[in-house]
Amino acid sequence: MSTETWEKLAAKKRQDLLNAISDWLVPEDQLPPPSQDAVADWPESSSWFTKEELEITGWTALELLHKLSSGDLMAETVTRAFLKRAVAAQQLTKCLTETCFERAISTAKELDRRFAEDGPVGPLHGLPISLKDNFNLPGLDSTIGLTSHIGAPSKQESVLVEILRKAGAVFYVKTNIPTAIMIVETVNNIFGRTVNPLNRKLTSGGSSGGESALIAFKGSPCGIGTDVGGSLRIPAACTGIFTLKPSFGRFPTSLCQSCMSGQEAVQTVNGPLTRTLADLELLCQIIVKAEPWHRDPHCLPVPWRAVSLPPKLTIAVMWDDGMVRPTPPVKRALEYTVGKLQGLKRSGNAETIVEIIEWSPEDEPAGLDLLHRMFAADGGRSIRTELERTGEPWRPEMAVYKNANEIGGYAYWQLNHERQVFQKRYLDRWIRAGIDAILCPSSPYSSVENGKFKHVSFTGVSNVLDYSCISFPTGVNVDKSIDKPYGEAYEPLTELDREIQSAYNVETVNGMPINLQLVAQRLEEEKCVEMCKMVLKALE
Amino acid sequence: MSTETWEKLAAKKRQDLLNAISDWLVPEDQLPPPSQDAVADWPESSSWFTKEELEITGWTALELLHKLSSGDLMAETVTRAFLKRAVAAQQLTKCLTETCFERAISTAKELDRRFAEDGPVGPLHGLPISLKDNFNLPGLDSTIGLTSHIGAPSKQESVLVEILRKAGAVFYVKTNIPTAIMIVETVNNIFGRTVNPLNRKLTSGGSSGGESALIAFKGSPCGIGTDVGGSLRIPAACTGIFTLKPSFGRFPTSLCQSCMSGQEAVQTVNGPLTRTLADLELLCQIIVKAEPWHRDPHCLPVPWRAVSLPPKLTIAVMWDDGMVRPTPPVKRALEYTVGKLQGLKRSGNAETIVEIIEWSPEDEPAGLDLLHRMFAADGGRSIRTELERTGEPWRPEMAVYKNANEIGGYAYWQLNHERQVFQKRYLDRWIRAGIDAILCPSSPYSSVENGKFKHVSFTGVSNVLDYSCISFPTGVNVDKSIDKPYGEAYEPLTELDREIQSAYNVETVNGMPINLQLVAQRLEEEKCVEMCKMVLKALE
Repeated sequence: MSTETWEKLAAKKRQDLLNAISDWLVPEDQLPPPSQDAVADWPESSSWFTKEELEITGWTALELLHKLSSGDLMAETVTRAFLKRAVAAQQLTKCLTETCFERAISTAKELDRRFAEDGPVGPLHGLPISLKDNFNLPGLDSTIGLTSHIGAPSKQESVLVEILRKAGAVFYVKTNIPTAIMIVETVNNIFGRTVNPLNRKLTSGGSSGGESALIAFKGSPCGIGTDVGGSLRIPAACTGIFTLKPSFGRFPTSLCQSCMSGQEAVQTVNGPLTRTLADLELLCQIIVKAEPWHRDPHCLPVPWRAVSLPPKLTIAVMWDDGMVRPTPPVKRALEYTVGKLQGLKRSGNAETIVEIIEWSPEDEPAGLDLLHRMFAADGGRSIRTELERTGEPWRPEMAVYKNANEIGGYAYWQLNHERQVFQKRYLDRWIRAGIDAILCPSSPYSSVENGKFKHVSFTGVSNVLDYSCISFPTGVNVDKSIDKPYGEAYEPLTELDREIQSAYNVETVNGMPINLQLVAQRLEEEKCVEMCKMVLKALE
Repeated sequence: MSTETWEKLAAKKRQDLLNAISDWLVPEDQLPPPSQDAVADWPESSSWFTKEELEITGWTALELLHKLSSGDLMAETVTRAFLKRAVAAQQLTKCLTETCFERAISTAKELDRRFAEDGPVGPLHGLPISLKDNFNLPGLDSTIGLTSHIGAPSKQESVLVEILRKAGAVFYVKTNIPTAIMIVETVNNIFGRTVNPLNRKLTSGGSSGGESALIAFKGSPCGIGTDVGGSLRIPAACTGIFTLKPSFGRFPTSLCQSCMSGQEAVQTVNGPLTRTLADLELLCQIIVKAEPWHRDPHCLPVPWRAVSLPPKLTIAVMWDDGMVRPTPPVKRALEYTVGKLQGLKRSGNAETIVEIIEWSPEDEPAGLDLLHRMFAADGGRSIRTELERTGEPWRPEMAVYKNANEIGGYAYWQLNHERQVFQKRYLDRWIRAGIDAILCPSSPYSSVENGKFKHVSFTGVSNVLDYSCISFPTGVNVDKSIDKPYGEAYEPLTELDREIQSAYNVETVNGMPINLQLVAQRLEEEKCVEMCKMVLKALE
């Protein structure tokens, strides 16, 4: 096929998206200028939104649900407010791929009608929820950033979508992702690049970066993304929101779009993205309570369990991953958090006391290496096959897949075995150390300039291990008066570390929120949430 | 290497085994003659065993544990009785690969000493447990039937072995398996062929056929085997004992010997083999209570759960698998069991009533095809690599691996995806039908003449699905006066069905026990045990 093919397809798809939201567009002259970097709070300062719309979009999911289920708010009102703000988010950050506004409004109306008769239809009655592009909604494309998937509306509904819908959620948008969901920022040849509403010079992360941009802009109260190497935690960190990366089997993944779904050596998982930990816990509870194992053969029949933390927790701090150190603000947030946790111990009247130990990064390089080899075991053919269908070129960020060598079934088994040995070694260390969690960065960055994100080891190794993790905002923000570059005397761990520290630009990231990551054992999602509550309390 | 190499290695290994048991051998002139087929009860009719030894080896694991933990029996006495009977089993059925008699007796003495001081050391205090050859015991070979593995004593202890040892079990033998654990009977180039003690013309099944022969001979009260296509359920069925094939992650599998451990498309699981359902349940409880997820990264943190059956169960009967019908006695046992279950309903005073529906075998051929392709995805290279190390030839039973074509990483992902779709389709059917279990044959046979076992679909599809299954003896035995061949008018489902039915020899299998299989959903091991209790009660 000629190269025109994919470009025409992509241009038409962009036009379709524009047409779909044309009735809702903010007039160009009311928008902040392209030179304005921070746009997340623009709606509050604009006259485009009503006071009610700003109130509604400012509430958390829990607050909204309280008002929706008590009849204080109509589902249609809430839906329209988020549609309007989501369109502004799209104009300012390019975070959307698909919309279904008519359907959303008609769903909301139907929910209002049923509410009038019987009360709330479920625990998510009337709550708008945004979905990463790879979730299938019947009748909508799931392009996952590939032009070959344009114009193939899904006939399926992802199991997780079905569960949320039956609980009363309203779907109105799907959000942007990188090509084939395999870049750590959010950029593809159809929809272009999603940028960070807190600072448009910066990335909102990837691959769930459409979600994180939309939620940070309050164009969605909460959303669902996916993670196979950090794709939930990196976007959450780049925008200062919460996410849980569960272990595989906790939340349903059936019937999602992927061009690599048979890649099981390290499993892709689905998880929520929220502005508060309470919202995150609520979504987890609702999803698991729906007993997804009856619809997804890979879901585990494990209910959402009540967990009480022991009186003493042992938390291991991993200051770097042996390859890269976090940039100065992230290091400072980690030091600050560790200090607060140690303070719990000293104060003596906390419910939980915390012992802090150090976690050696000795296994991280091997874990990262495994991750990369597993992703590329097909020699990039899964992605190449899709690209070739329309003549779409490889994006430069995908060189690792473009140049990968396909391995055979024998080598594949050896690779799986190597991962098993790695998982056993890591578990043995964990048990020997007697730790409850690892506290570490989500990435080296608060966020970083578009196109400059490097290195997924802080998140990717826990994918290889299938551990449960939360990325959470610490409340600490980058402060250019404190977070100076490490400077001339810095001794980098590796050449990559040198590059990352050299690229650190405190002027650009000044003010950005800083997330950290709490890593619990496999299938300890509930404990991870409880530990995060404890950490947030210490940080108060 | 010359072909002498492997033959010399194998001969020496056989001699080592013979030397190790030489003090315990039954004199040739006291053994039953080679022409005697049924030897399982020979010990009772011989003068080689004392009354006490026969009593001890006749008890179930529960009975033994009761006496051991109350001090009525010494661990050493019990151990010596089983050593002696296991040697006779070896002489008559070739069921062993490794022994550690001195260690076993010294372990038993140590247990007796500790008992005298502090009482039982654990819930398996003093119980001898046999282990399939692929379980690692430090200092013993784990050849898995490959001459290349001879003389490489393990430095590791399988996680499951560690758990049993710490619970008080005594290890004394490892049992025979087919080459690389990948033949459905138990035969390899080192130890030769294990035969069925109930009738030595017949196979004890595979791959856990050393275990089933030993346990049926009462040379072990219970043992541990593995299953990736029927390797627990087929041997249990061939010898009329119980087994549970759990879903992956329920029982630990870490640190077991395998030359295909990276084959994860369909997972190998470990499970108990016992003479009673109560013994089976006890072993399950003890293993899971040890929280194996702290030692095995693939174990799920799911306790052994109390399950109450609903007042009404829906059981789907699968009469054939669309490719092969069970031979006449198995069909009769299935009809008989179904009748008894329907009787529960009619009698009206059972705690549980059972609705019987039919289960279409429409998905079984695709499941079997997936299984075979997954096993051979490396083109047989894993096995070939080991064979070539000593020049050992392929066994004729392994032609499918010898002639397999290796697939690439891309095709591997496609295959995994195909399996995911299959698993989803099967689950959807299960939920739509609202069933609690499938009742079906474990194999087409009661047992069958050595070398003639064909077709693993009745078991293998539940490996692809990762469902929990029990194979249990119905109490029905082959009766040559009833179980006539289907005869001339029989219309076979396939050419394979024709072959299997033509080979059916009622004279040879006369008197053999008949097992059936109960298949529950994934990770429903406890429910599967409870349902099996209910079925056994109906069969009383």
